[in-house]
Amino acid sequence: MAQKPSIPKGTRDFNPEQVAKRNYIFNTIRGIFENFGFQPIETPSFENSETLMGKYGDEGDRLIFKILNSGDYLAKANSEAYSLKDSNKLTSSISEKALRYDLTVPFARYVVQHQNEIEFPFKRYQIQPVWRADRPQKGRFREFYQCDADVVGSDSLWQEVEFIQLYDSVFTALQLQGVTIKINNRKILSGIAEVIGASDKLIDFTVALDKLDKIGEEKVKQEMVDKGIPQSGIEKLQPLFSLSGNFESQIERLKTILSTSEEGKKGIDELAFIDNAVSQLGLTTAKLQLDVTLARGLNYYTGAIFEVAAPKTVKIGSIGGGGRYDDLTGIFGMKNISGVGISFGLDRIYLVLEELGLFPETVNKNVEVLFINFGDKEALFSLKAIKQLRQQDINAELYPDKITNGKHMRKQMNHANNRNIPFVVLVGEEEISSNTYTLKDMKTGEQQKVSLEVLISAIKKKS
Amino acid sequence: MAQKPSIPKGTRDFNPEQVAKRNYIFNTIRGIFENFGFQPIETPSFENSETLMGKYGDEGDRLIFKILNSGDYLAKANSEAYSLKDSNKLTSSISEKALRYDLTVPFARYVVQHQNEIEFPFKRYQIQPVWRADRPQKGRFREFYQCDADVVGSDSLWQEVEFIQLYDSVFTALQLQGVTIKINNRKILSGIAEVIGASDKLIDFTVALDKLDKIGEEKVKQEMVDKGIPQSGIEKLQPLFSLSGNFESQIERLKTILSTSEEGKKGIDELAFIDNAVSQLGLTTAKLQLDVTLARGLNYYTGAIFEVAAPKTVKIGSIGGGGRYDDLTGIFGMKNISGVGISFGLDRIYLVLEELGLFPETVNKNVEVLFINFGDKEALFSLKAIKQLRQQDINAELYPDKITNGKHMRKQMNHANNRNIPFVVLVGEEEISSNTYTLKDMKTGEQQKVSLEVLISAIKKKS
Repeated sequence: MAQKPSIPKGTRDFNPEQVAKRNYIFNTIRGIFENFGFQPIETPSFENSETLMGKYGDEGDRLIFKILNSGDYLAKANSEAYSLKDSNKLTSSISEKALRYDLTVPFARYVVQHQNEIEFPFKRYQIQPVWRADRPQKGRFREFYQCDADVVGSDSLWQEVEFIQLYDSVFTALQLQGVTIKINNRKILSGIAEVIGASDKLIDFTVALDKLDKIGEEKVKQEMVDKGIPQSGIEKLQPLFSLSGNFESQIERLKTILSTSEEGKKGIDELAFIDNAVSQLGLTTAKLQLDVTLARGLNYYTGAIFEVAAPKTVKIGSIGGGGRYDDLTGIFGMKNISGVGISFGLDRIYLVLEELGLFPETVNKNVEVLFINFGDKEALFSLKAIKQLRQQDINAELYPDKITNGKHMRKQMNHANNRNIPFVVLVGEEEISSNTYTLKDMKTGEQQKVSLEVLISAIKKKS
Repeated sequence: MAQKPSIPKGTRDFNPEQVAKRNYIFNTIRGIFENFGFQPIETPSFENSETLMGKYGDEGDRLIFKILNSGDYLAKANSEAYSLKDSNKLTSSISEKALRYDLTVPFARYVVQHQNEIEFPFKRYQIQPVWRADRPQKGRFREFYQCDADVVGSDSLWQEVEFIQLYDSVFTALQLQGVTIKINNRKILSGIAEVIGASDKLIDFTVALDKLDKIGEEKVKQEMVDKGIPQSGIEKLQPLFSLSGNFESQIERLKTILSTSEEGKKGIDELAFIDNAVSQLGLTTAKLQLDVTLARGLNYYTGAIFEVAAPKTVKIGSIGGGGRYDDLTGIFGMKNISGVGISFGLDRIYLVLEELGLFPETVNKNVEVLFINFGDKEALFSLKAIKQLRQQDINAELYPDKITNGKHMRKQMNHANNRNIPFVVLVGEEEISSNTYTLKDMKTGEQQKVSLEVLISAIKKKS
């Protein structure tokens, strides 16, 4: 193979620094998940196709990566589909498995399959890759990680309160200031649609309302008219267009608008309960904001809807989201299990931390000291010291090839430089006979002859 | 969907306890890898098919999971292959990507693709899942993790010494006594084949020799005769059949056998160098053993060959292996890059630790305290305390649903019991008014009314 090898579009290699930074985010989120009582599960990378297909709409079905059956798969191929050149129809006869598209459907499958072993309410988290045959573009990949936490088996609003606290704890731990946790409620949206006489146009209505920031009040109203929402209804909405102000005053205005909708009032009660609890518990870095235009995954969520916005200084979409769904496991025949969950957008959080310079300097646990290799005798002496350093949790190594001439010595020093290794140790005949080590600080250039004990403490002090 | 959902054969769900135990092994290995100067990389789950195909032999090619092209894949299907019902031939026209079969070929691809960014010698580790369409059986899965560490760009034997130390450090950290690190050298095997006049029968020869323990000396000799190895050659091997004794005495006998083979003598020198260095550095729990029957991946390795045997008390195959290869990256056009690497068999190590009861009791970082939910007022009071507990690194949670009658109270206590949560806290009106907490130790049944400060220290003391 002459040409340089490559990887499939939309996928990525991660070098050591990138892995370290990603793990910093994963480990922070994982620690907080466990701190809040969530426990990890893992599911297979591929599921039976029937588990995934039909759960994400037609568009989702198209974007699921299918795995070709092994062996003589043509033996069972649907020849009619083939002769019609109907790829879609042929697929189910030559492919029985598919790569996971998200973590939610596999989780629902897990809950139903293991329902007898699970103690409900079940608080689980899951951090695993998912795959989508989306057109790759900046920030959108065909393989990416999802970090989800969900509770199933309880409809208590305290979970929503807990998730807001959890978001705040994670962003506090990541030292990311200025995050906004937006909240809405499906019942508010349904209530509004009911009040304006457009229950059947809930999606048109929210899509239009969502553009308020971008295109302004008049154009939003025009779009609503165009979509067939009655003028009289739009007038009732007037207070919605100036829904700024704090959470409490927004709630007050919603009470006026929704006074005739039972469902709307229920949504208000839920939001007020959550806001009150969160206010009393306090948030450390994030802010909670009511956003009645928030409608993500509308057909899926039945109560609270969350979306997390990055600090305004960073131009990037949402870095997290979630909400309550009342029938997650229904698709697998287990009814009436209410759930609520949130997720973190790893790739975007990575970009935000990078842009704001928030990765700790020590995130890349690099080698702290390299021993120069002057020859086999010196190497053996060095490895004895290295063994002790490692037992003291110092990441240490020996340059593998010995110096055969002066040029080689420079090569070893350059190796330490290129890898940003902060210390180098030189062990020659003299050091062996006096049982000492020449320690060089690669930043300052300082060099001193020390005992093993001093060597260890000098490195520990700097790391 | 009425029937209970399931997962594809050969795949597994992992529950919280299993994830925790697996992570304990991963984290131990990862820590030691970094301690020895290895750095992590990650590669995509799927590669372009041309990167993988033809690298593992015909059998390997068959076992690689292929991903069906997205969209209207039949548009490019090879119609001749279809009409011949030649599945194998059709595949390349409807599938361009395949799931990773091991971590070695993707690593070679990575090194070649990123050669200009890499500082050699390059010490990398990689812990990721791989997929094989093998027939599932006990202990063999279609999705499993590999843990590999390799060094490329140095032919120094100190790397072999380091890897033996690394194995010892990992099994010491896992508190696994009685592990044997077997070592051989491809040059010894080639030398023996040369000496007995059967250079073209190296594989037949090693396959027969490998059965010595099982079928005994006479039957091994007979098999060699059957395979066409000359009688005169087999006689020269006599000392091989009693190659017990320590490393040094085995080396001495090999010197006699291989006195006429230059390659054989080189292999002896390498083994002696490694043995001498390892003896001087010492091993903490594992033993190093020369095993001239060891020939795993023979066509692949060019120098040292490693295999790690579990303690004799556990009936299980090898739990690790590796060796030196002189032309890993040659398949992608980058010649003369010597490499050496080892891997750990996660699933088998898991079984060994399980069988010997070596997982630490604290491996499953469970919730330490559950607050009973008596009602909204009590819940809010509890969550304020829980927030403080969490900031002290105590994993704490509130039961989400409030008690509505006596039965519910028992349900919450049972929930703590079923999840093995060691402490429960009860907060009622009385506690709120006196700003105290009733702490119940679920093991002893003891119950005491304490301040938040005492609550925190009591839980910390027990965890």
